[in-house]
Amino acid sequence: MTKNQRKFIRGLHQKKRREQAERFLVEGEKNVVELLQSDRFEVAELFASTDFLEKYAALSRPMQVWESSPKDLAQAGTFQSNDQALAVVHIPPPLPLPKRLSGLVLALDQIRDPGNLGTILRIADWYGTTAVLCAPQSVELYNPKVIAASMGSFLRVPVWEVELSKALTDLKLPVWGALMEGENLHELKPPEDLLVVIGSESHGISPEICQYVQQGVTIPRFGAAESLNAGVATAIFCDHWRRSFPM
Amino acid sequence: MTKNQRKFIRGLHQKKRREQAERFLVEGEKNVVELLQSDRFEVAELFASTDFLEKYAALSRPMQVWESSPKDLAQAGTFQSNDQALAVVHIPPPLPLPKRLSGLVLALDQIRDPGNLGTILRIADWYGTTAVLCAPQSVELYNPKVIAASMGSFLRVPVWEVELSKALTDLKLPVWGALMEGENLHELKPPEDLLVVIGSESHGISPEICQYVQQGVTIPRFGAAESLNAGVATAIFCDHWRRSFPM
Repeated sequence: MTKNQRKFIRGLHQKKRREQAERFLVEGEKNVVELLQSDRFEVAELFASTDFLEKYAALSRPMQVWESSPKDLAQAGTFQSNDQALAVVHIPPPLPLPKRLSGLVLALDQIRDPGNLGTILRIADWYGTTAVLCAPQSVELYNPKVIAASMGSFLRVPVWEVELSKALTDLKLPVWGALMEGENLHELKPPEDLLVVIGSESHGISPEICQYVQQGVTIPRFGAAESLNAGVATAIFCDHWRRSFPM
Repeated sequence: MTKNQRKFIRGLHQKKRREQAERFLVEGEKNVVELLQSDRFEVAELFASTDFLEKYAALSRPMQVWESSPKDLAQAGTFQSNDQALAVVHIPPPLPLPKRLSGLVLALDQIRDPGNLGTILRIADWYGTTAVLCAPQSVELYNPKVIAASMGSFLRVPVWEVELSKALTDLKLPVWGALMEGENLHELKPPEDLLVVIGSESHGISPEICQYVQQGVTIPRFGAAESLNAGVATAIFCDHWRRSFPM
């Protein structure tokens, strides 16, 4: 790995550089293998250890490949524990939101913690939700911690960064909002096509977006904790919807 | 704050020192206020800013109080963002596990990540579970990251660190285990008194503990994610049990 390559990769730890270069990083053996098995993203460059390149020779794709030392990999990436593989991947141009979406759609209003967003993508993937919409104020999908926490689910879950107010109007889906004082989730039968808004943990759903919520819904509480985190709340909503629509 | 006090507090960042001193740390305005409002733990010393001491004068308890600068607080604690309050708290001697427990009991087999354990305590608190049992190989309850992630729930949820094999035998409760290949959770009616074993995320339930599982149970999957994290899985089990027993 040349000095310039390392500098370029380390630059991609930062959002500003990712936006300028239109590239992001996928790190670690497991994530990179899943990336190479998927056709979701175009891979620009692969930096990998000799072992990795031998073991996964069959996954070769049109991309530049650089055999790299474990030490170089650990130093260039964001995770010191990764010394096997690191891919530089094209950020695709944003696609327009489809006019119609069916099934369960999640809308995330200002999730700021990258670990939370990654966990939510993994949950959305587990429950087979149709799409995840992220407000522009949310943490960026291509943040390395989001990619890592999603455990490969960033390759499978369609994500749109959109103005939620516009999307909630345009999609014409029934809108539930996860609120502290709404109706008891356990007692509500969800519609088959449904959009659920999850707010930021510290501030809940913003007042602007609250206007679009047609049904406030609360996960019933039986003890004294003040709240559940955004990932846990998302999972409970997805699980509830799937009890009515287990296809 | 004297140099020795800072050294002592910084020592408590480490498990070894916490065990020697039989003390642990509670940090941050919100957590410390909840600690002082609770009688769950005996507080040895409180280090707090002038503002904090004025604002919460009514919460005074028998303990040593040291007015401290925000800078000293930020430097002594584990969270740089905390410059308001830090309590040094007695670790209570372990209580014997009761012979009988009713309701929902969680048993955690080797949860290693402190953030996960804290999140699980918060979930246990939200759903009003009876107790949480932790295998000795799990991350320690008094780890500062566990305390922080529990958001005050460490004050409310009874936790026992016990050999799970012995506890699972002695308690004589029906035992469910969260497994990748068990019966569909959505189709099982839980017993009112129930123990649920949650395994570590990377290795699941250990073979030794698996012997005690009478019913393997799986959260149904509809997409392609390989797993859910231990906190999310715990929440889904608690939520399911509460659908049958909403008191």
